[in-house]
Amino acid sequence: MREQLIALRGAMAAHGVDYYMVPTDDFHGSEYVGRHFKCRSWVSGFTGSAGTLLVGKDWAGQWTDGRYFIQAADQLAGSGIDLMKSGEPGVPTLADYLEKHLQKGMTFGFDGRVVGARTAARLRSIAEKCGASVVCTDDLVGEVWTDRPALSAEPVRELPAELVGKSRAEKLMDVRAALAKDGADAVVIASLMDVCWLMNLRGNDVACTPVVLSFAAVTAEEAVLFINPAVLSEEIAKNLRDDGVTIRPYGEVYDYVAAMPGDKTLMLNLNVVNSKLEACVPAGVKVLDKPDPTTLPKAKKNEKEVDNFRIAHIKDGAAVTKFMHWLKKNVGKVEMDELSVAEKLEAFRCEQENYVGPSFGMIMGYGPHGAIVHYSATKESCAKLEPRSFLLSDTGGHYLEGSTDITRTFALGELTEDEKRFYTLVLKGNLQLGNAQWKAGCTGVNLDYLAREPLWRLEMDYNHGTGHGVGYMLSVHEGPQSIHWGRANTTPLEVGMITSNEPGFYLEGAFGVRLENLTVVKEVESNSYGRFLRFETLTMVPFDLDAVIPELLGEECRALLNAYHAKVRKTLKPYLTEEENAWLADATRAI
Amino acid sequence: MREQLIALRGAMAAHGVDYYMVPTDDFHGSEYVGRHFKCRSWVSGFTGSAGTLLVGKDWAGQWTDGRYFIQAADQLAGSGIDLMKSGEPGVPTLADYLEKHLQKGMTFGFDGRVVGARTAARLRSIAEKCGASVVCTDDLVGEVWTDRPALSAEPVRELPAELVGKSRAEKLMDVRAALAKDGADAVVIASLMDVCWLMNLRGNDVACTPVVLSFAAVTAEEAVLFINPAVLSEEIAKNLRDDGVTIRPYGEVYDYVAAMPGDKTLMLNLNVVNSKLEACVPAGVKVLDKPDPTTLPKAKKNEKEVDNFRIAHIKDGAAVTKFMHWLKKNVGKVEMDELSVAEKLEAFRCEQENYVGPSFGMIMGYGPHGAIVHYSATKESCAKLEPRSFLLSDTGGHYLEGSTDITRTFALGELTEDEKRFYTLVLKGNLQLGNAQWKAGCTGVNLDYLAREPLWRLEMDYNHGTGHGVGYMLSVHEGPQSIHWGRANTTPLEVGMITSNEPGFYLEGAFGVRLENLTVVKEVESNSYGRFLRFETLTMVPFDLDAVIPELLGEECRALLNAYHAKVRKTLKPYLTEEENAWLADATRAI
Repeated sequence: MREQLIALRGAMAAHGVDYYMVPTDDFHGSEYVGRHFKCRSWVSGFTGSAGTLLVGKDWAGQWTDGRYFIQAADQLAGSGIDLMKSGEPGVPTLADYLEKHLQKGMTFGFDGRVVGARTAARLRSIAEKCGASVVCTDDLVGEVWTDRPALSAEPVRELPAELVGKSRAEKLMDVRAALAKDGADAVVIASLMDVCWLMNLRGNDVACTPVVLSFAAVTAEEAVLFINPAVLSEEIAKNLRDDGVTIRPYGEVYDYVAAMPGDKTLMLNLNVVNSKLEACVPAGVKVLDKPDPTTLPKAKKNEKEVDNFRIAHIKDGAAVTKFMHWLKKNVGKVEMDELSVAEKLEAFRCEQENYVGPSFGMIMGYGPHGAIVHYSATKESCAKLEPRSFLLSDTGGHYLEGSTDITRTFALGELTEDEKRFYTLVLKGNLQLGNAQWKAGCTGVNLDYLAREPLWRLEMDYNHGTGHGVGYMLSVHEGPQSIHWGRANTTPLEVGMITSNEPGFYLEGAFGVRLENLTVVKEVESNSYGRFLRFETLTMVPFDLDAVIPELLGEECRALLNAYHAKVRKTLKPYLTEEENAWLADATRAI
Repeated sequence: MREQLIALRGAMAAHGVDYYMVPTDDFHGSEYVGRHFKCRSWVSGFTGSAGTLLVGKDWAGQWTDGRYFIQAADQLAGSGIDLMKSGEPGVPTLADYLEKHLQKGMTFGFDGRVVGARTAARLRSIAEKCGASVVCTDDLVGEVWTDRPALSAEPVRELPAELVGKSRAEKLMDVRAALAKDGADAVVIASLMDVCWLMNLRGNDVACTPVVLSFAAVTAEEAVLFINPAVLSEEIAKNLRDDGVTIRPYGEVYDYVAAMPGDKTLMLNLNVVNSKLEACVPAGVKVLDKPDPTTLPKAKKNEKEVDNFRIAHIKDGAAVTKFMHWLKKNVGKVEMDELSVAEKLEAFRCEQENYVGPSFGMIMGYGPHGAIVHYSATKESCAKLEPRSFLLSDTGGHYLEGSTDITRTFALGELTEDEKRFYTLVLKGNLQLGNAQWKAGCTGVNLDYLAREPLWRLEMDYNHGTGHGVGYMLSVHEGPQSIHWGRANTTPLEVGMITSNEPGFYLEGAFGVRLENLTVVKEVESNSYGRFLRFETLTMVPFDLDAVIPELLGEECRALLNAYHAKVRKTLKPYLTEEENAWLADATRAI
């Protein structure tokens, strides 16, 4: 049995806790978490990015989803922890498990700072139903994890208003206007991306997500940034103060909320705010549970942000196109594998001015690995690249001018008919969606058909969303918009929103194709029939013509592809060598 | 001032009522109502199909929507009733008006049988907020409307199970299974269409909607039909009894509900059930507010119903195609106007076996009248048909084998470039939607883009839904599915659902184009990727090639049109004369 599990059970016994839950979360409901917050991995040994551990006195279970079944089974072997495969027939959810096993008089606990308010409320009501109580909201893992990494305290950088199009002072005014409109006296923002966007700050406390651990509170009179003061330079601290922002230590946000006068209305996004913070709200304070007032303006990039995104995508396009040229020229001649080509691509990005770092963990999957949607090459799995089949490359970068997320599937040599056929169908879906024009009010639910149609017509599909929002040097998975036919997303696609367009197709054990561009929504015309919008494609990298069957693509999509390729060729020309441009001219020829 | 208004105010005074509301409804939440129920028209003089009248002591207002602004202004002139244009800037809703004008101690009334339970609850809470009370739920119009038509009591017909694919006894078993599944002891069904579908009965109590005034109650032990016994033949009454159905007088449904034992769970669709019925539910009875258990099975036609719909559409297709031939041959040679050609079309339908009657009031609009979406020709408005421009014809019939709803726009002679262009774009939308293939789970929200895309691409649109369900010799507007991008309809399009496909375009003062087919959903294949579905077009009438610009239609849609026309030509051949077939061969030629 794993010693960390034994240690945690010791702490549970000391606190009189029967069941203790360890989720994968920080204090902010983040999608990815820093090293300090990897309690669940520490206890169970399972290192996947998603999952929840439940520890009882003589049973423990690690829930995780289909992406991680194989990895988790491997890492949990001998740990004394059962793998609970979420979504599989006969496997209860954690809530169902608790409801069945919690008994009268038992106690159930978790660290209230790493469990969202809404989740905590649901679990609490289950516990109460069983006659159990939630007595412990302390960090029991922290008590026994002796060599735990400290809270990250990376230095913060400030993005000037000239770069991001709007000053912190203006953004604060907008938040205050939103509060007034909703009749709220204050808002406490827990989402790291929202705090960073509001304050025009970026940090480095979460891998690939340049945020800083912090909370923000805004009222009509004051703005408070709860942050480790050590991460702020004197200059940034002064700039914050000049904009009327008070700086208080990170942990004092709880005291701040607890000290709110009882007649106030507090806006809180209970989907994000942690349960300890919510528990601090004094009786009498009315909680207005709403998305943060920063979420929609953050998603709807302003003109300056969009202009910068275009710049970032030209640089990134040059890097990825150079990589494509290098790859196709050298495969079969030079030794290469998934990890070495990932390094090569990163090197091309590093050559670009204002490149900050990868925007997420690269997916670089050769052949059958391309069919694993969230594949991450390791030394053990790393495949050699041969001059045949596909390399699926889903990567991205943060630049001071914005962030990229691009998937290309490269033909490394001879392809099977199936490989070509499905590449062409996925490309057709990408081009059809990219060419949509719609009436304002449409959401991604209305448009996803266009991306899936070529596969649906053959009674086939891919099992992931077609589009997600992308932040400005923040998270590459940003809401609130998305493109998926079956998810009830009611946020219209609006001017300035940056969204991915990434249909795919995966044949297990054989190959995977995914083709992803980032797009920005533009207004075409506003008239008596309504406002009409369309996408502008930001990504500037050729699709691989070696994998395209022109007749299958159809006349209309061929024209769209040729127009896109002409634009890529023209746009990238100044950034490539003569040899690269000569190759690009052929790689983007009209078909 | 209108004497009926004065009479109603007299009754209000006698009952001590300050504000009295007269909606357009029967006891069943029907879309169209019989003559007995036209209280609102009787009081205000406004005869449109939709609107609500509110009468105060010294003010009265008639709310109605944009379709009727001109007609209502005309009919209300001198009545002492203000026209309240719903949706126009500055015009309060009836609820807002009440909230502003109801004062402490005032009383507000309506006939509880003609106001839905949900609406009544909303109005009641407004009244309470104002300190007013809802004291009167009697039929005050009935007290003063001396020459009121009696409740309709048309004879009922029975549809044999062989015709509709499922016996009454089987349907009752299904309802009982649904009750058991939801833990309900009983259901009371108020929707006339649902009662008729369940009982395999049809009547004639509402114009164009062959239903019979009735309620049904079903429990595990009994089934009760509340109906005027005089409308049932001895044979039908016996058949009902043989299937275990108890027949009780129409008005006794209220007593039935009031007599329910207090520990029962009663399923009621509060969107349909009238407020008087809901008020009869005894304290202690738990109301399970759900769509009627008949609604989804009624929408998902069984195989026999679908087969019959195909037959009905061949007959209807022959009738409309004969009409098209006659029209295009004779226009400019024979005197014709909107009303006379409507009669002609009806005559062609009457020639068909098992034709029961029109399924809704015909829309037959020439030239600019085609741009009025709900146009209904009258002697005054009736336009002469000339050998140019468009005739928009939206008509349908009930047959024993099912119901039709078809819109064609006919070129009567020379067309302008705009007329041809928009005809072609609307046709393109119809063909694109008709050719969709999707994964089970999709709703009309996911597919509407296909119908609108040709117009959206030109920054234009039409202001109505693209598709509605159609009943089997019941209402031609049947839920729960629909096709509209912006309406949050969560009902997936499922096998057997019959839905219209009717994009349009309207240029006010000039012309209108609408092209409507009925479709049925079929399964294509079920495999590991999911279940895949598509539409089969039921309607069998050519589109008018005289209005089509082939290049604008595009290659793919041209192929779809040619395939459809080949099918129409082959299918209708046995039902047309030699002359008609010769003409049809040309009218359906490949382009």
